[in-house]
Amino acid sequence: MKTQKFLLTEQEMPRQWYNIMADLPTPMEPPLHPGTGQPCGPEDLAPIFPMNLIEQEVSTQRWIDIPEEILDKYAIWRPSPLFRARNLEKALDTPARIYFKNEGVSPAGSHKPNTALAQAYYNKVAGTKKITTETGAGQWGSSLAMCCAFFGIECKVFMVKISYNQKPYRRMMMETWGANCTASPSTETRAGRSILEKDPDSPGSLGMAISEAVEEAVADENTKYALGSVLNHVMIHQSIIGLEAMKQMEMAGDYPDVIIGSAGGGSNFAGLSFPFARDKINGKQIDIIAVEPTSCPTLTRGPFAYDFGDTVQMTPLLPMYTLGHNFVPAPIHAGGLRYHGMSPLVSQLVLDGIIRPEAIHQMETFKAGLTFARSEGYISAPECNHAVAMAIREALKAKEEGKEKVILFNWSGHGLVDMASYESYFRGNLADHDLPQEQIDIALKDLENLPKPRQGK
Amino acid sequence: MKTQKFLLTEQEMPRQWYNIMADLPTPMEPPLHPGTGQPCGPEDLAPIFPMNLIEQEVSTQRWIDIPEEILDKYAIWRPSPLFRARNLEKALDTPARIYFKNEGVSPAGSHKPNTALAQAYYNKVAGTKKITTETGAGQWGSSLAMCCAFFGIECKVFMVKISYNQKPYRRMMMETWGANCTASPSTETRAGRSILEKDPDSPGSLGMAISEAVEEAVADENTKYALGSVLNHVMIHQSIIGLEAMKQMEMAGDYPDVIIGSAGGGSNFAGLSFPFARDKINGKQIDIIAVEPTSCPTLTRGPFAYDFGDTVQMTPLLPMYTLGHNFVPAPIHAGGLRYHGMSPLVSQLVLDGIIRPEAIHQMETFKAGLTFARSEGYISAPECNHAVAMAIREALKAKEEGKEKVILFNWSGHGLVDMASYESYFRGNLADHDLPQEQIDIALKDLENLPKPRQGK
Repeated sequence: MKTQKFLLTEQEMPRQWYNIMADLPTPMEPPLHPGTGQPCGPEDLAPIFPMNLIEQEVSTQRWIDIPEEILDKYAIWRPSPLFRARNLEKALDTPARIYFKNEGVSPAGSHKPNTALAQAYYNKVAGTKKITTETGAGQWGSSLAMCCAFFGIECKVFMVKISYNQKPYRRMMMETWGANCTASPSTETRAGRSILEKDPDSPGSLGMAISEAVEEAVADENTKYALGSVLNHVMIHQSIIGLEAMKQMEMAGDYPDVIIGSAGGGSNFAGLSFPFARDKINGKQIDIIAVEPTSCPTLTRGPFAYDFGDTVQMTPLLPMYTLGHNFVPAPIHAGGLRYHGMSPLVSQLVLDGIIRPEAIHQMETFKAGLTFARSEGYISAPECNHAVAMAIREALKAKEEGKEKVILFNWSGHGLVDMASYESYFRGNLADHDLPQEQIDIALKDLENLPKPRQGK
Repeated sequence: MKTQKFLLTEQEMPRQWYNIMADLPTPMEPPLHPGTGQPCGPEDLAPIFPMNLIEQEVSTQRWIDIPEEILDKYAIWRPSPLFRARNLEKALDTPARIYFKNEGVSPAGSHKPNTALAQAYYNKVAGTKKITTETGAGQWGSSLAMCCAFFGIECKVFMVKISYNQKPYRRMMMETWGANCTASPSTETRAGRSILEKDPDSPGSLGMAISEAVEEAVADENTKYALGSVLNHVMIHQSIIGLEAMKQMEMAGDYPDVIIGSAGGGSNFAGLSFPFARDKINGKQIDIIAVEPTSCPTLTRGPFAYDFGDTVQMTPLLPMYTLGHNFVPAPIHAGGLRYHGMSPLVSQLVLDGIIRPEAIHQMETFKAGLTFARSEGYISAPECNHAVAMAIREALKAKEEGKEKVILFNWSGHGLVDMASYESYFRGNLADHDLPQEQIDIALKDLENLPKPRQGK
């Protein structure tokens, strides 16, 4: 079966990012100051982000020029190829045409460098000497480490302790790119020490690691903080995925009926889908599906509420779907996508019915990953397998209905550094897991005393 | 600094492989039967290889059509990009123009699938139900596993035991692609058992694993054996690297003064260099450098002799540079490139002065890998860092001489599954190592009673 790959030349690479803020059906509610509960101004964010990124964060400009220096280095891995997954179609015997955007071609193996590069660049321009961040499985931390190396910026990564211990290869990648990687919670910050006091064996969480990274950034004026997902400027940078995919779908002579991305903080999902969501807002019929794990069902079971981005409540309050800032996924959960919150932009579009969230059990995602690897060759990161599994579901539905559906999904990254998760799957150490309602109830309680958004479920 | 990438479309992908056998300045000496010492005929190879591959092995036809089915699946990762390494040039402040061919884009992360795909295909056509092979670090075994999955062929990989234990991710990749991976020496074969009897703690070697794989293939008529390097048909399949690179260098408006590849069995080196070696044979001035580790200095310190491909002396005798079929690299050696022999074609061209071998100490290779990762982003496999290190040496020489040299090297694969070697480097657990002369002397003794080639040192 002929594999089809749609390639853009460097000259065809988009030269502007897309900002969906300009096209929202309902305006966003503002982030609130963690202390006062009042809307945050740019100056409130200045201790942790450089002003040029803060401007992007609040921008309502539809198109934002990509600086030449970023385009130059994007060219290391961009434009990324779009594939027609004909071998998978054949394996499923489906009339659907399945396309995937391959973001695994970056040196770090995922879509994360799309924003890591931009953030490192804007920090460089603003005179930042050091960037702190958090990372879970390590996709984001390693991407930022690489991009800081490109611009000669010091990089310090707080890595969720359980991943730090289970995924040493990602730490080694960060060190290869010259970054310092510390297990979180650590004794290096007040936040870390206060968590360790209560629970010396804490496995860590993204919320905790964010607290540590933000604390270290705030303490020094030449140090800034970077976040790999959730925030508006991250969604802007990732839009290059969807903008390229639009051109490539045009080359293929197709337009997607269904668009699929896995969603943790929302960045790879938004990156592919937002440029298409704009078409949907303007009247086009598309089913846009954000896929999350049943063990971290932020969009499908969490409330839309104001919540902190981190455990120690240092970040602004964001209007988003959330499982509560104290959420830690069950140990049985093997993949990524473990953040308690969700991009406010993705959340708003779910609220407005533009995006449809779905949760998938993990056994189905690994099974899908094997089907994909044995037909198309590529071994997906466990988080990416959520998108693969949903694409397979939709393709089989098309077969049942005898429909020629066009499915496009974001293959956000390869799993070569995550093989231990596959091993757990092979050894029978994984099982499906649904978040107990009890944990949702605890989250709801945590949110009770916080300001409420006007909208919400 | 602008990254430059030279891309070919699928339509521009070469549709024929190049066979350097047609252009050799000196004809090859034949392989000899391991029992009789007489030249091997195709029928002698029939128990282990399908006849269509044996025909390629002995072919002297210059151009060999690539079957449509192989082109279709090559398209999953081919044509691979050629980069101008401008960021590395800047980091080295060199007047040299450095290009590298990125073979790390395949799903398995290296150049190995170029021949794995072809071998799986030809076996499929010949009716093979199962393929056995050996693997060291696992690049080859995982590539063959993937390609067997594409064609529904069972795959059994004997993996050198020390790597099996140290590099579990590669084994997991093989399992993900549906292959069976066994540590070698194993108790499953007579060869394995005989080795274990003498040394129950044997760390294994490629030579031993080959013995096991060949034994299992010979025992069943629907089972064949596949080798990932060394043999002529492998060099033919890999020629697609250099054929693409020639077109891409033309796009860049440059022609290489120096061509560099790391050499273990010789396949990635030959893949890039042989199409250019043809130009050299026809009078062009090019420095073609095969780089090997000082701890496995086959080309730089071994004799050109007839030797077995495996430890238990089951394979034909090949005319090649060799460290003796009992060679096992010192444990301090962290990278790949650990095979005792070398492709007879590469060996012949070294003998004829077309190829210049060089050996590099391992500390220099890791240092080079860091320089490359921090400037160009990509983290190289340790074997690949031998090529990177030599490219850096040549670029610095050009700087010293004030020359505008054009350097092209094969970036044969990424190191994301080999991060443990980088960890050893960071932790100070590695040191340079030269093979003691004593070990070479033992090899020479092993070869004493074997037939001698007409040529030789």
